[in-house]
Amino acid sequence: MSVLVAITGRDNTKLIARLTELLPNETIEEWPSCKNPSDVEFVLAWNAPNDLWQQLPNLRAVSSFGAGVDSINLSLLHEHVDVVRIVDKQLADDMAEYVLTHVLAQKLRLQEYFVRQSQGNWKPKRGYKYKHVGILGFGELAKACADKLLINGFTLSAWSKTAKESQHVKLYTGTGLDEMLPQIDFLVCLLPLTDETKGIINAQLLAKLPKHACVINVARGQHIIESDLLSALDSDNLRSATLDVFTEEPLPSSHPFWQHTKVTITPHCAAISDLNSVAIQIAENINRLNRGLKLNNRVNRTKGY
Amino acid sequence: MSVLVAITGRDNTKLIARLTELLPNETIEEWPSCKNPSDVEFVLAWNAPNDLWQQLPNLRAVSSFGAGVDSINLSLLHEHVDVVRIVDKQLADDMAEYVLTHVLAQKLRLQEYFVRQSQGNWKPKRGYKYKHVGILGFGELAKACADKLLINGFTLSAWSKTAKESQHVKLYTGTGLDEMLPQIDFLVCLLPLTDETKGIINAQLLAKLPKHACVINVARGQHIIESDLLSALDSDNLRSATLDVFTEEPLPSSHPFWQHTKVTITPHCAAISDLNSVAIQIAENINRLNRGLKLNNRVNRTKGY
Repeated sequence: MSVLVAITGRDNTKLIARLTELLPNETIEEWPSCKNPSDVEFVLAWNAPNDLWQQLPNLRAVSSFGAGVDSINLSLLHEHVDVVRIVDKQLADDMAEYVLTHVLAQKLRLQEYFVRQSQGNWKPKRGYKYKHVGILGFGELAKACADKLLINGFTLSAWSKTAKESQHVKLYTGTGLDEMLPQIDFLVCLLPLTDETKGIINAQLLAKLPKHACVINVARGQHIIESDLLSALDSDNLRSATLDVFTEEPLPSSHPFWQHTKVTITPHCAAISDLNSVAIQIAENINRLNRGLKLNNRVNRTKGY
Repeated sequence: MSVLVAITGRDNTKLIARLTELLPNETIEEWPSCKNPSDVEFVLAWNAPNDLWQQLPNLRAVSSFGAGVDSINLSLLHEHVDVVRIVDKQLADDMAEYVLTHVLAQKLRLQEYFVRQSQGNWKPKRGYKYKHVGILGFGELAKACADKLLINGFTLSAWSKTAKESQHVKLYTGTGLDEMLPQIDFLVCLLPLTDETKGIINAQLLAKLPKHACVINVARGQHIIESDLLSALDSDNLRSATLDVFTEEPLPSSHPFWQHTKVTITPHCAAISDLNSVAIQIAENINRLNRGLKLNNRVNRTKGY
């Protein structure tokens, strides 16, 4: 069989070299180069062109090159095509460390001090006492973040689509979100991006948060209506935001977030996949496909995660 | 008896009001106002003038208005005068949170990203993997920091003047410092300021750290030879520094630290005493003095801490 790497906007040389080492008997090509489209049974995809799928009559599985599958237009894939994603313990650890770091940074006013440092302004202020973190989503990454925050003395709530259980995290589902929002000091978005979650952080949701709250988005830029977030910050109805993801990436140089003193920007670096760990997972799934085994980390195509 | 508050460079109105509430039967005055110097048996001091002490013939105890007693010139006090300091559980918790936050901030390159944000520069970088924190000092504050870092997966070493014991922290004493320094990724200074520790972070010490190391000073500005620190940063022999304390405070506006992209400045805010908690401790010691009891949190005047 043949494997096609269809990851756009990125240099895939090292990834393909590593996959070739791990799978010496497979043909591995990089889109748009593809000698025999009918040989392709497995695609590794990230923002692949929509017209790719119809050219691959024998496609059996698609792997996202990340934890989310929102870069793949699932509706264009035949029903029998398996969709899998990357589940990386290191990704979860890195995400938890990022979230803890930025919750603490907001608690201890790091950005305020960085801005004052640039102005040569000495003004001691006590750190905030806020301790209640609410997470949107309660999948693997959210659970890792909750555990990390719990051992550091934070109070945790989380909202997810389906009811789940946790001993130490207060869980909400459905309209319970309206009950959770007014109680929390930090809102961390770790939702998958689906039609239901797109634009979920909008004016209506932000109005339910306390004015001292901080929004931290480490999921996808499209979860936030960016103009609504700016309005909330500019009208002092929200204290601050830490954003790792944006509607357009890289964030355009004219975007008002860059110079906003209440916005902390990081360049989609909260959890960067380790190339080797990702390559091993992909190779494992290709081997499983060859041997007729059920693939690892399959996505529910109806739910989209 | 009479209590004299000799804290300079600070508005003491609220502190004196609270002490008056807690000690309704004592005369509490604020230096330089002092009707009968011979009545003064207890002084609460911070940067008190050196010529104060000889004017108080019946002085029995001096309390520092902080965890350190370096603001008091101990050699000017009669031998029989007790010296006490503030030991505040909340101070230790705040210090531990500050140190964890800034170690994580250096690990995840927060300052690099703040500088890039101000330039509109999108450049994702993986966080550092460094995990080994070395603490100078192993008193109450250092122990609280070590515990907080340990539960977050860091490896801990500490160096102190006298040999101590710890199950999870590798301890060094004396010339063991030379053995500890090359192994650590973050150096946290939590020493008391004494003649022996003044200027301890100098060119010679910095040269023993790995080039990727970060220095975090939350003790006293005088622990660091600031020009040596700048040389190490500018010659790329040290990655970065987080400084909460400085030789001169507020940090003068012309100081090169302000605009240095490798220096994170906070304005002596790592652990701000809670006025009420401090007032209660002071009142307790004044009551103990009245009743002839041994004072709490006495300082060894020879050691200076």
